[in-house]
Amino acid sequence: MPKVTIAQNILAANDTIAEDIQQMLRARGIYTLNIMSSPGAGKTTLLERTLARLQGRIGVGVIEGDIETTADGERIEATGAETVQINTRGACHLEAHMIRDALAQMDMSHLQMLFIENVGNLVCPSSWNLGEDLRVVLTSTTEGDDKPAKYPQMFAAAQVMVINKLDLLPYVDYDLAKVKWQALAINPQLRIFELSCRSGEGLDAWCDWLLTVTVAQHKL
Amino acid sequence: MPKVTIAQNILAANDTIAEDIQQMLRARGIYTLNIMSSPGAGKTTLLERTLARLQGRIGVGVIEGDIETTADGERIEATGAETVQINTRGACHLEAHMIRDALAQMDMSHLQMLFIENVGNLVCPSSWNLGEDLRVVLTSTTEGDDKPAKYPQMFAAAQVMVINKLDLLPYVDYDLAKVKWQALAINPQLRIFELSCRSGEGLDAWCDWLLTVTVAQHKL
Repeated sequence: MPKVTIAQNILAANDTIAEDIQQMLRARGIYTLNIMSSPGAGKTTLLERTLARLQGRIGVGVIEGDIETTADGERIEATGAETVQINTRGACHLEAHMIRDALAQMDMSHLQMLFIENVGNLVCPSSWNLGEDLRVVLTSTTEGDDKPAKYPQMFAAAQVMVINKLDLLPYVDYDLAKVKWQALAINPQLRIFELSCRSGEGLDAWCDWLLTVTVAQHKL
Repeated sequence: MPKVTIAQNILAANDTIAEDIQQMLRARGIYTLNIMSSPGAGKTTLLERTLARLQGRIGVGVIEGDIETTADGERIEATGAETVQINTRGACHLEAHMIRDALAQMDMSHLQMLFIENVGNLVCPSSWNLGEDLRVVLTSTTEGDDKPAKYPQMFAAAQVMVINKLDLLPYVDYDLAKVKWQALAINPQLRIFELSCRSGEGLDAWCDWLLTVTVAQHKL
């Protein structure tokens, strides 16, 4: 749901709740990431692979946002991470009040990092603050290399872009340099990671960086 | 933007405009399809391949919906089809008034078929009637085989599901039978086409069927 059609007072009310969430999470020393992408870019798989690398080193929780089904929540729960599933029942994005309610069900005592997997949608989630410290947009080599230019609001709102499915590059028409150039033209501060959740390429660099920002943020 | 959060009077006003559009297009003998999908499933490429096969046999027009850029409109215009580009400037779906305005710029005198390419979004467009005769949801083998279950509203609202990127099946974890089973569980009347815009597999069957429904609809 884009800014242009949302009454400003609804977004302002969301921002107020998001600020409360951020304050509470920071007070607890929990670094929070909001992961956004098209449907099928690989958010849940990226989380599975990331959790496998972070567990034992840091306490991680996940809030799984989906319109329907608990399938993703079950996949994440199987990794052993503290997990809460939200079903939006038709809504195209997560809102801060949903995060507040999910956190009320979560044991946060041992957490240092919280991932929020948003609903698969490259448009609407970008307008809704969830109290996160970092917004990550995930894109993949099978989606075409015009996505930053065509969905600029999402790439402008993110601090990190992860390009997934590097293993499929030989089989698709996808100009990696063009995507990075397009994204940086919209958002010159964007930090970019390239990886394949299938082959494992690039995952260690991504996870090492996550650990570094968490340490830096919380002076662990 | 889902039904649950849209004021019913906004959707009702949209429906009224959509009915006017449908009446006008049917009176002119124009069969209209609304093509919806995730970003990067291949809507524009499917249209390019389809137009190449239909041209010379039937008069085809295209309304191209995008948040930003005229890139897709230019790709479609290059095929020789009558084309109008809409930029929604942030909005996550097309609405009927946008179609009404686009049609006012279109020479419809020689058209028998009109494609509307919606904004790439597997959620919000399903709530907005555009005056179409047929809703087509496009999905692809690189998006994961859980999309019908996770985005049921879109698959329930469509009459046709097209599965694209068959050529990438050997390189991804995608259970084609599962996707079809999931989609038919939501919508038993769904007609399914499987194809690859890259290899050309399945495109003739899809285009032959389009010609058949156009002939049947308009008794050409």
